[in-house]
Amino acid sequence: MERTLSKSFWYKYRARWQSSYSLLCIGLDSDITQLPECVLSEKNPIWEFNRRIIDSTYRYACAYKPNLAFYLRDGMRGLEALQLTISYIPEDIPVILDCKVGDIGSTMEQYVSTFLDIMGFDAITVNPLLGIDVLKPILEREKAFAFVLTLTSNPSANDFFVQENMAVKIAKWLSPFPLEKIGAVVGATQVNQLKEMRELMPGRIFLIPGIGVQGGNLEAVMRYTRDSDDYPNILINSSRGIIFQDSSSKFAQAAALAAESLHNKIGVYT
Amino acid sequence: MERTLSKSFWYKYRARWQSSYSLLCIGLDSDITQLPECVLSEKNPIWEFNRRIIDSTYRYACAYKPNLAFYLRDGMRGLEALQLTISYIPEDIPVILDCKVGDIGSTMEQYVSTFLDIMGFDAITVNPLLGIDVLKPILEREKAFAFVLTLTSNPSANDFFVQENMAVKIAKWLSPFPLEKIGAVVGATQVNQLKEMRELMPGRIFLIPGIGVQGGNLEAVMRYTRDSDDYPNILINSSRGIIFQDSSSKFAQAAALAAESLHNKIGVYT
Repeated sequence: MERTLSKSFWYKYRARWQSSYSLLCIGLDSDITQLPECVLSEKNPIWEFNRRIIDSTYRYACAYKPNLAFYLRDGMRGLEALQLTISYIPEDIPVILDCKVGDIGSTMEQYVSTFLDIMGFDAITVNPLLGIDVLKPILEREKAFAFVLTLTSNPSANDFFVQENMAVKIAKWLSPFPLEKIGAVVGATQVNQLKEMRELMPGRIFLIPGIGVQGGNLEAVMRYTRDSDDYPNILINSSRGIIFQDSSSKFAQAAALAAESLHNKIGVYT
Repeated sequence: MERTLSKSFWYKYRARWQSSYSLLCIGLDSDITQLPECVLSEKNPIWEFNRRIIDSTYRYACAYKPNLAFYLRDGMRGLEALQLTISYIPEDIPVILDCKVGDIGSTMEQYVSTFLDIMGFDAITVNPLLGIDVLKPILEREKAFAFVLTLTSNPSANDFFVQENMAVKIAKWLSPFPLEKIGAVVGATQVNQLKEMRELMPGRIFLIPGIGVQGGNLEAVMRYTRDSDDYPNILINSSRGIIFQDSSSKFAQAAALAAESLHNKIGVYT
């Protein structure tokens, strides 16, 4: 079945929160070099891996987030796996393509057309360095949504986001853009800045990577970024910490346990 | 024939300059929605278009630069066109993938592995917002090369590169990185900043978009960014201004004329 953009990401995120009480985003960073041996003999290993991960985890997921790098790594078969994956995820669970794209206007139009209009993703991540041109194709589409990199969770986020104050500058720059179309990526590893980020961006949905393998502190994240009682407006992402728990043929069950466990931990602070 | 990274981009750029006296980079932004009708009935229109463009323009080219967005737009067929294109370009002409990627370390490793090790591009463009993690997979590979977005040519480059002084900050941040591995994208439309960019980055190769359709001033670009008599250390990019000159079946001849003309204009200032 073709996945269609029948509802906006904004709508789906809120509806999924209300129906599942999940704030968990499961990152499908399905690195071909790390897949369990039992799927490697399949015609399309990444797709087989994802299918079984989705079957075992969807009940805990508020959203899924494949990262484009891991699909391109497997060439045309990887791109096929990405298309099969997005079509397979239940329609009421929004899917974010983590591609961190940011280009001039005419080129951004191509990316947005490809990822949202053609492939059917509900949202993408974008890099704002080139300025507002990057957001125009999102703002022009009624149901489109983009998470803008505002503060990332990697070690060298310090170089520009922190030392050059880019996190604060980007957060302020986002303020005129509608909450229904533009969210923010706010990394969990920079705990001391989380409070400031939420103060600068009330009502905006935060996509929060860095919990799990990258070592972010879940309690601090929940305390400082949770927005309101009705809508927390956060998505806590875990990728490797869920999908690569176990490299045996029981990988999917292990992923389900990890997803359930993180979902429950998030629930304590919700 | 598989294209291999037998020589580094740094080596190939300098050798091509010495053998061809060309500083022209031809951007293969082969937008499927703008291709001449005569290639649309081919099995793989983008590939057929590129093949004929390369045949007619390679003698004027110092480098080629396909932009990833336009290939993903055509799905698996587009990715196949990209692979065929890179294999077809003569081995002594370096090929840059314009992908503007920038992600955390483990994900960047995937992009670099895919684009340089597997697909055989000589260089990629990268977005530095996430800091030095973005460059590590390039620095770790003996022959790899990346052009770092330092000042772009789009209208809203003003938002961060100019108003927030990011162009100067990035240029200074690049200074410890080897000239043989790291270049800079410096947009031609910001003429008043070109001189400062070259002063901050002596010896670094500049990839300069914005001439042609985007309206940059070639004379000013050449005057202010040319580095030394032996090695100008610049690449003047033109994409739509060359490849989409004519929409009839004579598109390749028209592209050749446009490439020759720009090559000659560049020559006046060399």
